[in-house]
Parts: sequence; C-alpha cells; structure tokens
Amino acid sequence: MAYLLQVDFKMEGPYGEEMSKGFVELAQSINDEPGMIWKIWTEDAAAKEAGGIYLFETKETAQAYLEMHSARLTSFGIQDIRGKIFEINEPLSMINHGPIKNK
Amino acid sequence: MAYLLQVDFKMEGPYGEEMSKGFVELAQSINDEPGMIWKIWTEDAAAKEAGGIYLFETKETAQAYLEMHSARLTSFGIQDIRGKIFEINEPLSMINHGPIKNK
Repeated sequence: MAYLLQVDFKMEGPYGEEMSKGFVELAQSINDEPGMIWKIWTEDAAAKEAGGIYLFETKETAQAYLEMHSARLTSFGIQDIRGKIFEINEPLSMINHGPIKNK
Repeated sequence: MAYLLQVDFKMEGPYGEEMSKGFVELAQSINDEPGMIWKIWTEDAAAKEAGGIYLFETKETAQAYLEMHSARLTSFGIQDIRGKIFEINEPLSMINHGPIKNK
C-alpha cells in the first residue's frame, strides 16, 4: 500500500517560471529518493505558500524523506513547515480515479 | 492548467474498512462534481485525521467544491477543516512523474 506525504510551507519565492528553472536539479534528485513514486509541486504566489504532494511506497520511506526534506527547507530559511503522512483509503480513491498505483 | 485542492481535518471516524463502506455513495457523488478530475482519500486513524487530495480543472471549480465540502463536513460535526488550493508547477511535476494531466 502506498502512502501520501503532504507538505506545505511559507516561502518568499521563487514562483512560477523562476521556480521551474531554479529547482530542476532538486526535482531530478527527488526521483532518486528511496520509495518515491511521484511528486506534484504546489505553489500559491499570492499567499506566499508552496509545497508538494508525494506518493511513497512505504510509511518508512515517506517518514525518512520528510525528515530530510524538512531539514533542507529549514536550511533554505523556510519556516512553518507542515508535513503529514497519510494512509490512503484505496477503495474510495479507486472510485474517484485517484492515481495511487505504483506503476 | 489543473489546480490541486488539499483538505484535511480532525475526525473521530470511521477509518479503514468501515470508512470504505460508509462513504461509497459520497465518493460516487464526487465524480459528478463540476471540474473534478480525481481524488485520493487520506486517513490517519492514530492521529484522528483525514482528508483528501483532489485535482480540479480550474481554480473556480476547486473553490466552489471546497466551499460546498467544508459546509458538508461541518454538518457532519467535523471541525478544524483546513483547505488550500494550489497552482501546480507543471515542469517540475512532470520531472517527478506527477499525475497532473486531465486524461
């Protein structure tokens, strides 16, 4: 069963195109993280908030990533980091076409 | 461009199998909501927290759903509802295999 990691935080920037350009290498490195299946990068420039929604193979890999990523975000000067790891209700998510399968 | 809706809240239950059975009709009705592309149902029985991650076709449909859903959750006696609508950074999400396409 896959686990969902939900992260959001306050951030001054960059947003939009500048964000897309600035974090290419970081995004590529995230593909190499143990257990990572996919990530959706989220942003709200008006509210100065950003984050990510991730699918991980196990709770342990999601937890390890959250700890590493929180430390990295803090090193960027980012505060108010909110990270939650959830189980996924598979039968209900399947009804709603949720993309929860590993492949 | 699709928008991501992130919702979480405190809930006494039901969780797990009981949740799967109890919310089938609600899940089916969510497929009929304007602009809804998919939903992943999230739950954490230990923390007594649940929620959903949704993809919507537009910001307006995500906003309308959030308002309706928040009122519905409140009518269920659910409190501390936290809903956020984010833009999606498409280039970075594509690098990380994010399931952000409408089809």
